[in-house]
Amino acid sequence: MGSMSLLRLPPGPVDLTTIPTDATPDFDGDKADGKEALAELGDELSDLQERLFAEGRSGSHRRLLLVLQGMDTSGKGGVLRHTVGLIDPQGVRIHSFKAPTEEEKQHHFLWRVKRKLPEAGYVGVFDRSHYEDVLIVRVHDWVDPRTVESRYEQINEFEKELAADGTVVLKCMLHISPDTQKERLLARLDDPTKYWKFNPGDIDERGHWGDYRAAYETMLERTNTEIAPWHVVPADRKWYRNLAVGRLLRDALRGMNPQWPTADFDIDAEKQRLADEVPPA
Amino acid sequence: MGSMSLLRLPPGPVDLTTIPTDATPDFDGDKADGKEALAELGDELSDLQERLFAEGRSGSHRRLLLVLQGMDTSGKGGVLRHTVGLIDPQGVRIHSFKAPTEEEKQHHFLWRVKRKLPEAGYVGVFDRSHYEDVLIVRVHDWVDPRTVESRYEQINEFEKELAADGTVVLKCMLHISPDTQKERLLARLDDPTKYWKFNPGDIDERGHWGDYRAAYETMLERTNTEIAPWHVVPADRKWYRNLAVGRLLRDALRGMNPQWPTADFDIDAEKQRLADEVPPA
Repeated sequence: MGSMSLLRLPPGPVDLTTIPTDATPDFDGDKADGKEALAELGDELSDLQERLFAEGRSGSHRRLLLVLQGMDTSGKGGVLRHTVGLIDPQGVRIHSFKAPTEEEKQHHFLWRVKRKLPEAGYVGVFDRSHYEDVLIVRVHDWVDPRTVESRYEQINEFEKELAADGTVVLKCMLHISPDTQKERLLARLDDPTKYWKFNPGDIDERGHWGDYRAAYETMLERTNTEIAPWHVVPADRKWYRNLAVGRLLRDALRGMNPQWPTADFDIDAEKQRLADEVPPA
Repeated sequence: MGSMSLLRLPPGPVDLTTIPTDATPDFDGDKADGKEALAELGDELSDLQERLFAEGRSGSHRRLLLVLQGMDTSGKGGVLRHTVGLIDPQGVRIHSFKAPTEEEKQHHFLWRVKRKLPEAGYVGVFDRSHYEDVLIVRVHDWVDPRTVESRYEQINEFEKELAADGTVVLKCMLHISPDTQKERLLARLDDPTKYWKFNPGDIDERGHWGDYRAAYETMLERTNTEIAPWHVVPADRKWYRNLAVGRLLRDALRGMNPQWPTADFDIDAEKQRLADEVPPA
């Protein structure tokens, strides 16, 4: 059960063209092996998540926040379904960030994000996140460059506060090639059960691929902190993407090492009460 | 793949002592068969849920709300984990209602419930619900009988409005015997990984078993409407409980018959745009 240390982005400048989108770092097997390895993660993920949840019910502040970023069709939804779906849904809180509402626009860009943070003991998942506020807004010049510049630091500061408050932040960028995106968009146009996922605007956004890459590269470099590092997950192969995020999640939970809470009551006395009771009817 | 029509509570007075807690209505197999049948539900549940979700993204108001009620240890959590856990977590919104907060207490009893209703396209799940406001409050006389009396009608009116707004309300009471509860409480006291689930107050509540049964019986009779009927699920056998709720969920989604939305764009024109584009780099 290898860990996924190769996916952790090293410090320094980032050139996404040098990071393969179809590789399978830290994993030797093929697709069938990968699916099996993902299924095998289920028990350990469930155990770790339940321990974290139990801790949260017993006064611990700890929680985990998985942040998923990536271009359209990079597979954020697939990770939610196949990887996050392995965990007991009682302990998971997913939030998908869309274009900000009028109300959200009137607030600081972190306002809506802070309202959706997971509670103690939970695994929170952000499908897109505060990182959109240094990506799409930069590509389309919706915000002046100085403001974007200031946001990298604000994000780092925010994530530092989260960490200080017991939140482990696991950041994954799902990395696909433009060819893979094209295939997936065509697949949506070829399958009536996928029409609803298609938006003509997605093709317009493809026209800005180079700008998005540049925005991602700067963002990755500037927010790749020791306390909340980025992981770049090759995502052309769906099975590898799902497995890699699953193992990163497992590694993060292992690192937290959550423990079953001890009893805050007298176990023998409670057993005796049950033994002595008048049987309910 | 039989439906679970026997679980639907017939109209009229309810005597829970006449409904077996360890039976397996509408199912012939044993535990292994039941677990297999539950796993087999996964694909159909996923397909139906995704259709509902797709509809919701395309303007439909429809949604489903699963309401789970039952005594402590009746297995609400187990249903969430094993049955609701079969569905893509992106399309599910679970809310566990605890003792009301000070803020919640200052509002109408339905206030907190209305704030947690699922959005269009979602499967919402209430782990406990507005029904606590005619159960525990009645058992402990926290609310005068006349108020409790008025709440049955308010609940029926509320659920009628939900239905009119496109929400299918699926109500399940998980029905266990006091002996099964005793076994499960003892199991929590015997297993350090389960201490966190144990609360000494649970044993105190057992002392009110008869009062709870009476409160459930009245509640079931008074809120068992045509539009939002109750299902009483024998829950002494965990595997049957999980399967039964899964099939009820499947039946409810089948009844909604959600359809893939048609394309609101010109499919061929979009394909052409992808074919004609300058390849992104």
